[in-house]
Amino acid sequence: MKNYEKSELKKIFAPASGDMSAEDFRRVGYEMIDWIADYFQNIEQFPVLSQVEPNWLKDNLPKSAPAEGEDFQEILSDVDKLILPAVTHWNHPNFHGLFSTSTSAAGIFGELLSAAFDMKAMLWRTAPASTELEEVVTDWLRQMMNLDAGFRGIIYDTASVSTLHAIAAAREGLDLKIRETGMSGRSDLPLLRVYTSEQSHSSVEKAVLLLGLGQKGLRKIECDAQFRMRADRLREAIEEDKQNGYIPFCVVATVGTTSTASIDPVDQYVAVCEENAMWLHVDAAYAGSAAIVPELQTYLKGCERADSVVTNPHKWMFTPFDLSVLYCRHTDLLKRAFALVPEYLKTNETVTNQMDYGIQLGRRFRSLKLWFVIRYFGQNGLIERIREHCRLAQLLASWIEESDDWELTAPVNFALVCFRACPKGVENLDELNEKLMNNINASGEAYLSHTKLNGKFTLRLSIGNIRVEERHIEKIWNLLNEKL
Amino acid sequence: MKNYEKSELKKIFAPASGDMSAEDFRRVGYEMIDWIADYFQNIEQFPVLSQVEPNWLKDNLPKSAPAEGEDFQEILSDVDKLILPAVTHWNHPNFHGLFSTSTSAAGIFGELLSAAFDMKAMLWRTAPASTELEEVVTDWLRQMMNLDAGFRGIIYDTASVSTLHAIAAAREGLDLKIRETGMSGRSDLPLLRVYTSEQSHSSVEKAVLLLGLGQKGLRKIECDAQFRMRADRLREAIEEDKQNGYIPFCVVATVGTTSTASIDPVDQYVAVCEENAMWLHVDAAYAGSAAIVPELQTYLKGCERADSVVTNPHKWMFTPFDLSVLYCRHTDLLKRAFALVPEYLKTNETVTNQMDYGIQLGRRFRSLKLWFVIRYFGQNGLIERIREHCRLAQLLASWIEESDDWELTAPVNFALVCFRACPKGVENLDELNEKLMNNINASGEAYLSHTKLNGKFTLRLSIGNIRVEERHIEKIWNLLNEKL
Repeated sequence: MKNYEKSELKKIFAPASGDMSAEDFRRVGYEMIDWIADYFQNIEQFPVLSQVEPNWLKDNLPKSAPAEGEDFQEILSDVDKLILPAVTHWNHPNFHGLFSTSTSAAGIFGELLSAAFDMKAMLWRTAPASTELEEVVTDWLRQMMNLDAGFRGIIYDTASVSTLHAIAAAREGLDLKIRETGMSGRSDLPLLRVYTSEQSHSSVEKAVLLLGLGQKGLRKIECDAQFRMRADRLREAIEEDKQNGYIPFCVVATVGTTSTASIDPVDQYVAVCEENAMWLHVDAAYAGSAAIVPELQTYLKGCERADSVVTNPHKWMFTPFDLSVLYCRHTDLLKRAFALVPEYLKTNETVTNQMDYGIQLGRRFRSLKLWFVIRYFGQNGLIERIREHCRLAQLLASWIEESDDWELTAPVNFALVCFRACPKGVENLDELNEKLMNNINASGEAYLSHTKLNGKFTLRLSIGNIRVEERHIEKIWNLLNEKL
Repeated sequence: MKNYEKSELKKIFAPASGDMSAEDFRRVGYEMIDWIADYFQNIEQFPVLSQVEPNWLKDNLPKSAPAEGEDFQEILSDVDKLILPAVTHWNHPNFHGLFSTSTSAAGIFGELLSAAFDMKAMLWRTAPASTELEEVVTDWLRQMMNLDAGFRGIIYDTASVSTLHAIAAAREGLDLKIRETGMSGRSDLPLLRVYTSEQSHSSVEKAVLLLGLGQKGLRKIECDAQFRMRADRLREAIEEDKQNGYIPFCVVATVGTTSTASIDPVDQYVAVCEENAMWLHVDAAYAGSAAIVPELQTYLKGCERADSVVTNPHKWMFTPFDLSVLYCRHTDLLKRAFALVPEYLKTNETVTNQMDYGIQLGRRFRSLKLWFVIRYFGQNGLIERIREHCRLAQLLASWIEESDDWELTAPVNFALVCFRACPKGVENLDELNEKLMNNINASGEAYLSHTKLNGKFTLRLSIGNIRVEERHIEKIWNLLNEKL
């Protein structure tokens, strides 16, 4: 497909004014496309985790910016020599650590075009395409997840920020004049509290800290044996806190926790939230994508009564990082918490201005890449890929169950397998499993991460890469058994 | 440069599993590159402000996602038919509204590559290249801006988020156990206050609201005739508040305000901040880029005593949105405010883990695009472009000063001109100028925005596009005079 030979490459410098010429743009652009096509074709030849030592890249880069512009070929050659060795390859099909997330070609092209437009969605008029496509494409996704039409989708960067906005809106909904007078210096304001499980994501606590509610403003609720927040304990905690004069105002449930992909029974929290006029936020950052698979939609039961739900297409919908969708029933509260219109942004239009719904004034044109992804694969294409990942997880789980050397440490939900080696005669299983993980990670063949469950060191193996096939799961299974 | 004819284009559908083939990737990729090259070549043929009516795009898109994957050519054809008319062209050299920001080819290629890697910088090991290049490239920029080595740069998405983090760190620095116990339910905690000018950006107030400090937690200080925060008024306000038992803890100064690009005399606030152990944050989101021009560095005077400074390369350094750099002297406080390490993210490495410095757990590989931009243009290439923009602003200002029909309404700092029509015999100048602006914006020939200064409607004309030439300034000047 190449329309030039490498040897033909001429030096490409910046012109004295303005930007790169159209001719050079095409030349460099084609080369970038070839580079990326080759990268994906050869991805399995790279070590999954970068094998460089800390500071290697830093030590190999100049300490100061170049005074004069450099040849673009030189920059690209440094990508090969300096950047690539320091890349951890999230797109490698044996990246099983944290959550396995990966991007697709369609998503990359969406990002490319969005960078070229470089629109900032503040006012509607500064980015009508971004404002309206976001509304449309988040509504497509809402339908795919079978969430009801009461939810409106807003795209933020990460689930951390989506959850932050949900809790901020919940706080605004208290009608305690926190927008006007704040929380400091107020003897009239009792302790405000958010509730979440011991297994929920650290972003919930981070959001609570940022909002000025403090660690004391977050109460962590005990889980059952399957790592699900116990509804009875939640109710007891809320009752106790009310008796102490505190104000419980928000519950954050998780569908697909980070440690084990456990599924909080959201529907069991609805009653206590309604009785106490509390906001119910559901963190489905990981598992929200799975909810497009009809047989997995049941796990969102209760969301029809939730106030907000977050899902991250950049996690498991083959969309480049970052793109998180907050579905919210009360965008009026989000707006009340955040809207501020300075004179230089006043217009006479009665339209949606995205700047009114969050901390950022301007937003990237993120909906474009998700639109590309959904259209290119279609709803069914996405369903099949996610369903296959879940099948592979069950397959691995079946091998673990059949083996005497291994045990599952949590139920296998979605496409995450928590397990550990338990060969007979070994005393310190924590040490054994940690060593095993480190050996595999150091080999560059695959990347696994860990968690602790009931105090036990546990391996986590996440399956979510768009390039993952059964042979990759066989490979990691063989690796695990070889290194044991 | 094309290596195929449009007529040759075959249909490109998603395969049954996995991602797009390498062959299709190259084919679509080349086409995207051609599309973008053509777009930039023809950019002046588009209306600057999108001419579609609200809901036009929404009404023209299907209400639900396609069940099956679609031909990629179909998607690209919809970009032409549906997306393009709804784009407001920030890259058009006659985009003079808000702040004129634009992207460069080098920045686009950086974004493209970053989307392909799709790394999430949480732990060092999940993205060594991103973690270390960020350190290096923000240090390059720091030197270019002539900021001292006490500052460490951290890349966030927007200045709103950078400023939010600065104020959060300042709050943590109070040692009032806000991380532990929060601000609600505390009779021991007096009102905490942040100070900024009447002219500062709305993001300061938004950050204060999000942090739970309330509008009452922000005191806006009067400006002088040149729209600069008065140091005497600032001191008086702080003294008065202390007498009332409040705790003043942060001052936000602005170098290059949004309305007029006015320049707060940062050095005059240093003493009062030091006496009261207050954090001094400088919002140089716009003008920070100008500080790479040696003769403009003087405007950052005082920053050598500031605690943090934010600058946005996505504003005036030809880097695609979003990329904001927070320079901070006290990253320990940022870390204290935000760090939370759950079990599944614990490692034994003593390295910088970017997740510890902000609300987001994962971050995009943003430094790559800035590295591309700085290397391609070189420090001098960037200086020349920004210097030229400032020259064009002075040129326009000179035409305004020489004319009887126009007047400047604020000093011309950097490359922003605030002015208005004042032809003899017209009573309602506000109405005249607003109509003028609306006519020009509706014509599609250029985009201007406005502000109010001392109650007067004022036009704002920002010059910052990488493609802008003297002829574009002549064009808008002619347009203004024709439509008057």
